Amino acid sequence: MTRVTVWNEYRHELQEERIREIYPAGIHNQIASFLIAAGMEVGTATLDEPEHGLTQEVLDRTDVLIWWGHMAHGEVSDEIVNRVHDRVLKGMGLVVLHSGHMSKIFMKLMGTSCDLKWRDAGEKERIWVMNPSHPIAEGIGEYIDLEREEMYGTHFDVPAPDEQIFVGWFEGGNVFPSGLTYRRGSGKIFYFQPGHEAYPIYYHPDIQRVIVNGVRWCEPTPRAYPVYGHSEALEPIKGGAVLL
Amino acid sequence: MTRVTVWNEYRHELQEERIREIYPAGIHNQIASFLIAAGMEVGTATLDEPEHGLTQEVLDRTDVLIWWGHMAHGEVSDEIVNRVHDRVLKGMGLVVLHSGHMSKIFMKLMGTSCDLKWRDAGEKERIWVMNPSHPIAEGIGEYIDLEREEMYGTHFDVPAPDEQIFVGWFEGGNVFPSGLTYRRGSGKIFYFQPGHEAYPIYYHPDIQRVIVNGVRWCEPTPRAYPVYGHSEALEPIKGGAVLL
Amino acid sequence: MTRVTVWNEYRHELQEERIREIYPAGIHNQIASFLIAAGMEVGTATLDEPEHGLTQEVLDRTDVLIWWGHMAHGEVSDEIVNRVHDRVLKGMGLVVLHSGHMSKIFMKLMGTSCDLKWRDAGEKERIWVMNPSHPIAEGIGEYIDLEREEMYGTHFDVPAPDEQIFVGWFEGGNVFPSGLTYRRGSGKIFYFQPGHEAYPIYYHPDIQRVIVNGVRWCEPTPRAYPVYGHSEALEPIKGGAVLL
Amino acid sequence: MTRVTVWNEYRHELQEERIREIYPAGIHNQIASFLIAAGMEVGTATLDEPEHGLTQEVLDRTDVLIWWGHMAHGEVSDEIVNRVHDRVLKGMGLVVLHSGHMSKIFMKLMGTSCDLKWRDAGEKERIWVMNPSHPIAEGIGEYIDLEREEMYGTHFDVPAPDEQIFVGWFEGGNVFPSGLTYRRGSGKIFYFQPGHEAYPIYYHPDIQRVIVNGVRWCEPTPRAYPVYGHSEALEPIKGGAVLL
Repeated sequence: MTRVTVWNEYRHELQEERIREIYPAGIHNQIASFLIAAGMEVGTATLDEPEHGLTQEVLDRTDVLIWWGHMAHGEVSDEIVNRVHDRVLKGMGLVVLHSGHMSKIFMKLMGTSCDLKWRDAGEKERIWVMNPSHPIAEGIGEYIDLEREEMYGTHFDVPAPDEQIFVGWFEGGNVFPSGLTYRRGSGKIFYFQPGHEAYPIYYHPDIQRVIVNGVRWCEPTPRAYPVYGHSEALEPIKGGAVLL
Repeated sequence: MTRVTVWNEYRHELQEERIREIYPAGIHNQIASFLIAAGMEVGTATLDEPEHGLTQEVLDRTDVLIWWGHMAHGEVSDEIVNRVHDRVLKGMGLVVLHSGHMSKIFMKLMGTSCDLKWRDAGEKERIWVMNPSHPIAEGIGEYIDLEREEMYGTHFDVPAPDEQIFVGWFEGGNVFPSGLTYRRGSGKIFYFQPGHEAYPIYYHPDIQRVIVNGVRWCEPTPRAYPVYGHSEALEPIKGGAVLL
Repeated sequence: MTRVTVWNEYRHELQEERIREIYPAGIHNQIASFLIAAGMEVGTATLDEPEHGLTQEVLDRTDVLIWWGHMAHGEVSDEIVNRVHDRVLKGMGLVVLHSGHMSKIFMKLMGTSCDLKWRDAGEKERIWVMNPSHPIAEGIGEYIDLEREEMYGTHFDVPAPDEQIFVGWFEGGNVFPSGLTYRRGSGKIFYFQPGHEAYPIYYHPDIQRVIVNGVRWCEPTPRAYPVYGHSEALEPIKGGAVLL
Repeated sequence: MTRVTVWNEYRHELQEERIREIYPAGIHNQIASFLIAAGMEVGTATLDEPEHGLTQEVLDRTDVLIWWGHMAHGEVSDEIVNRVHDRVLKGMGLVVLHSGHMSKIFMKLMGTSCDLKWRDAGEKERIWVMNPSHPIAEGIGEYIDLEREEMYGTHFDVPAPDEQIFVGWFEGGNVFPSGLTYRRGSGKIFYFQPGHEAYPIYYHPDIQRVIVNGVRWCEPTPRAYPVYGHSEALEPIKGGAVLL
């Protein structure tokens, strides 16, 4: 049984009435609800808990971590970011949602600015499947329509992904690489763009399906962590002259 | 004319007689010499200069930076690393050589541990071309033989490269992805594994040719830096009901 | 000096008055004109010439072949397709434009159906740059606007590209991976979507610039063709017991 | 339950005593045995059966096809190759083993010559894992040692893979990209190099494990096949002036 921890900044819901109406128990609990329904073992963690709810113990028993953050990226402590980073390199999966693109952990894993164009104009987004055989697109039709979503537009300053699963079309004239996979160390990462807090995106069945699929894709692969460092020869070495 | 800055830690050559014999003027000056011969405008910079020789001014007039470091990665100041990082994302090319794989700048750009297996046993390496149409392999035969090189072995904990140009075969039974390209932000990066300080690797004509090719491949592409941040709509937005 | 051959089916222009008005000398001559202006040595070839104008001699002195075809893909002889295919694998560059996506040569190189969605509704396309450091995007702004273009929409049934340079946004709600690079054998391939015959696309300065850049990117890399087949050992083989 | 069809040319085993001793029931039955032990539903098919054992009916109920061929690639009928090709593009997985690299079906899917260097000198191969988080490497250590294997050496004339899982080190001084994944159409493909008929490779537990993992990775993703062809607009089109 996949063990998921859903991390949420959990500020918009507490500070803004209109967001709380959409997610009365917080974005994390809404996400947790459909992961549980999919048969996963799910915990949650939020910014204002001690250690942001991400103790070593919690991370050690987490197969896949989901990350939603936005207005308070700077309040996440570097120590916790390093702890999560280390766990990803050791094999923990990571699903980064929406505005998590500028979280410390995603930026650290990508090595780039992770910047993009944005606009909150309540416009339509149509998310097209680009990779029809990918398990993250399982059960999804040709596209997902969101009547209102914040626009995220290219150029998105991230490395070329290992796989591009989705591209978003926005009513206002932009496009965005909306679903991307990356392998970093022994861990797998899925970035998925939808989920502005002001729209009920995480109630959409197809968005839920993609996140469930993404968690499954990110599950750790059971094998021993690679051995790094000094390594004895496996075959005899003659030793040449010091010549080129 | 491509403007190159060759950065070298420059410690082994000063501290160890046997290394100084190979590179009397330092690795940086040996590398500079063949880049100059290839028609480039070349400066050098070393760790113990003020600001490690990498002032903003120097970086601003650098098209491609070459990085060789090994024993003193930890002495490179974070401020300079951030300055170089910013320049790469803005378009400066970066060629990282050999033990530079564990430099702060490379690790920051990769987002991973950049760890590997290693062994200094004076063994033979044969570097095979994997990508025959790539300009970095221009003028190179099927492989390059190094009679003695430090072994670097897989698993190399870096992201999957955009392009794999070379794979190294080692006498002692290991393999290594010896030539890799990455795009990060608006900059291009080439990692090239050969160059242990104790062997005269940078005198080898084919190694020189690959580095010259790599510098050319990393040259900035002349175009305006992308505009990030808030962005007005390019097309009219009807505005939908707040429904999914 | 890069030697380019521009191949055009050259039927629409002869059969349809409205197309001939746009390209009185044929699409091939319009493309040739701006390649010549960019300093290239350019020849043309068309379907109804003997051997479609693509004799072995012509191909042997071609660095980069440009391909525009649409209504008569089936009339291209398999023998000529095989001849072009062989030249690409041996190093000749290939730029495939617009409806060339269903040409025999492109399908043979891709190994897939190369099918897509399409619609000719005179709608707007906005072609976004996805890869800001790529030389094919040199001199291009954030996007190229085409007031009217045929819609090509995802899913585009081609392999994941080596590099995705452009993504097109279409007014009617579709997206398309509009600029893609591939390496096949020792040759380089650039697919570029714009160019429906009914609109004066190849008069657009940015479209011309991309095609010029694409030709340069596709130029053969000077090195010996790899040696395939039986190969003697480069190192002594002890010969083990026939055990695993 | 995954339904696998193991296709084998089945000539070496019938014609050569020393091969028959290794695989008395044919390579296909040895491969089938460990797939069955892994809980899969397995059928076999061979060259000399009517339609090579690959009727439309057989293919329609096959989730993943395994292909082993060598001396008689030319005897496989183009009709059957086209039938298999169509099924792969429609979603059937394909695992191509060893000398299947020159099979008609693999060449058609790759679009290249699929040529390589080779030598049968009974030398040692060490297959290194390059992609530690990939499910195809599940349960495998850092490398797999084969005491004797035919050498396959780079350059391997195939497209850059979507993922490189393994690289082989050969005693005689060569390297080879020994495990590669590709997506083509709606199907997934895994190429795995080990399996020269003269050595008992398919009895090796790790080789078996990789093939089982590979079959699982290649399983079809349940979703509707994309719709290609003419497509109505999803959003209103204003229709611009015929200007650029």
